[in-house]
Amino acid sequence: MAERRNRQFVLAARPTGTVKESDFKLIEGAVPRPAKGEVLLRTIYLSVDPYMRGRMGDQPSYAAPVAIGGVMVGGTVCEVVESQDESVPRGTYVEAYTGWQEFAVVKARGLRALDPNVAPISTAVGVLGMPGLTAYFGLIEIGRPRPGDTVFVSGAAGAVGATVGQLARIAGCRAAGSAGGPAKIDYLKSLGFDGALDYRAEKDLEAALDRVCPKGIDVYFDNVGGPITDAVMTRINIGARVVICGQIAGYNERGKETGPRDLWQLILKRARIEGMLVSDHYEHKDAALARLAGWIGDGRLKFREDIVEGLENAPRAFLRLFSGANLGKQLVRVGPDPTRR
Amino acid sequence: MAERRNRQFVLAARPTGTVKESDFKLIEGAVPRPAKGEVLLRTIYLSVDPYMRGRMGDQPSYAAPVAIGGVMVGGTVCEVVESQDESVPRGTYVEAYTGWQEFAVVKARGLRALDPNVAPISTAVGVLGMPGLTAYFGLIEIGRPRPGDTVFVSGAAGAVGATVGQLARIAGCRAAGSAGGPAKIDYLKSLGFDGALDYRAEKDLEAALDRVCPKGIDVYFDNVGGPITDAVMTRINIGARVVICGQIAGYNERGKETGPRDLWQLILKRARIEGMLVSDHYEHKDAALARLAGWIGDGRLKFREDIVEGLENAPRAFLRLFSGANLGKQLVRVGPDPTRR
Repeated sequence: MAERRNRQFVLAARPTGTVKESDFKLIEGAVPRPAKGEVLLRTIYLSVDPYMRGRMGDQPSYAAPVAIGGVMVGGTVCEVVESQDESVPRGTYVEAYTGWQEFAVVKARGLRALDPNVAPISTAVGVLGMPGLTAYFGLIEIGRPRPGDTVFVSGAAGAVGATVGQLARIAGCRAAGSAGGPAKIDYLKSLGFDGALDYRAEKDLEAALDRVCPKGIDVYFDNVGGPITDAVMTRINIGARVVICGQIAGYNERGKETGPRDLWQLILKRARIEGMLVSDHYEHKDAALARLAGWIGDGRLKFREDIVEGLENAPRAFLRLFSGANLGKQLVRVGPDPTRR
Repeated sequence: MAERRNRQFVLAARPTGTVKESDFKLIEGAVPRPAKGEVLLRTIYLSVDPYMRGRMGDQPSYAAPVAIGGVMVGGTVCEVVESQDESVPRGTYVEAYTGWQEFAVVKARGLRALDPNVAPISTAVGVLGMPGLTAYFGLIEIGRPRPGDTVFVSGAAGAVGATVGQLARIAGCRAAGSAGGPAKIDYLKSLGFDGALDYRAEKDLEAALDRVCPKGIDVYFDNVGGPITDAVMTRINIGARVVICGQIAGYNERGKETGPRDLWQLILKRARIEGMLVSDHYEHKDAALARLAGWIGDGRLKFREDIVEGLENAPRAFLRLFSGANLGKQLVRVGPDPTRR
């Protein structure tokens, strides 16, 4: 194994404006060796997610930025290829946070072991991982949907959004959402969304909302921000809850974007806007994952993956999130998945 | 009494942009007579409040607009001068909602009788009325202050804002606020505010906030909107609560104002913005009034009134709210107050 090399993507430059492939650099290093209590992990899947844009800059955020020259962070699904801890034997599949690289050594303690018989191991960074939990806690704990409510989600075809819409239906709500392009709209319909609007095709977003949400909006789950959010704010019902989960429309902005002031709407509608971070809710992670797994098991919760092959394509996969090219949870297959035939 | 005339202000025109005195018209009519179960009220105090700007326009709001030619609405403190209901005898002082006029007939049932020995009757439209209840429910129920929190209030020298700051201190918080001009800043200090900034004098609102709120802001009670709110949003702490009570800075705007988008801050700080209407909380009005009266009684809650004499000056008094000329709760003395020497 000593002859194997570890390919890694490091942050080459802090992006100004739109992220470019040249902001990342592929380097090679030695494969590290585990000490006692540690394991060597081989990356199978790397998750690329919008929040990573925040880690690339050095503006104030809820987490420290990646250092220039540092390995890009990210959730991964890995196989234990060498173990110095008997609790996590070689061959175990685990969820980890080892970033954009082929190998990593981590402490064995606290790793989540994955059972390929319960769900595909890739879901550990998708519907049964951070994105699924974001949808669950954001919708259920912050959005507090009541049966009969209309739930609208922006970025509805993404990993979080698609789960939000299906959870809304499970909660007895009407689900509608926005996405870009006819393929995504078809996808939303296949998931059981009651309404879907193509924000790229609609000239009048407010009129489109009236069409897909004829009774107004009780819960808005926002992954996007910008014009779709401006339009939704004019269509919220009394007592509405707005969950701010992401603002991807603005992540590549250089300065402070401006938009219409809509706080008056909050008085008019006695409505609430609340920002969320999924990690604040991890105390209740296991119970949420058990519920999500149950709904996958009984066919009520579907998911879709968009897999790009090879670590060398990780920057390209990441950029797909901002252009909206991905359809389903964006993953990078870094190495072979022995559990998939 | 039949020869007495009833002077009334009616809405002459829906204002576009800034309200003008010519948007109101003073007319004279007959003094109405009460039928069985009714009383004739003589107005002593008329309250003028920012929300009335909304009633003058016909944009969507939480209440129907005043009709052109209709009497301007408003809270009043009145004396019963003729009674056709034994439960409310002549000479009773009551809180009513009879608007910008000298006399009105209303149903006796449901009127709140006022005891001049408990507090000046004028407080029934001030610290012991809608503005005081707005401060109480907005701060306590929506803002949920915890001892040690920093509470910042915009429009701090107004009827609502001054009460918010004092309630924050009663709740064990640090209280700070913004107001326009040195006289108001002195007033805030006299009320016990720990920090006060003059938004007219400060060139850098964010730096001024750092000075008056060195530990950031846990609860923001917003009466104003606009630039001060933009600045506060950059200084909120993790878990902050923002109460949107008023947006007076924008009430005279013709179109949709724009400002920096700050929803990302809500994720960063896992913070909440919520709009409020005091009337949603009136189920618990009596308990809140009892508490407010108790704090007035033991000297912990002070109030100040800014009284303009004569119904004919009601439009001028109303405009003072928008220029910021008033210092304390703006009232119009429409007729003599026999309880004040």
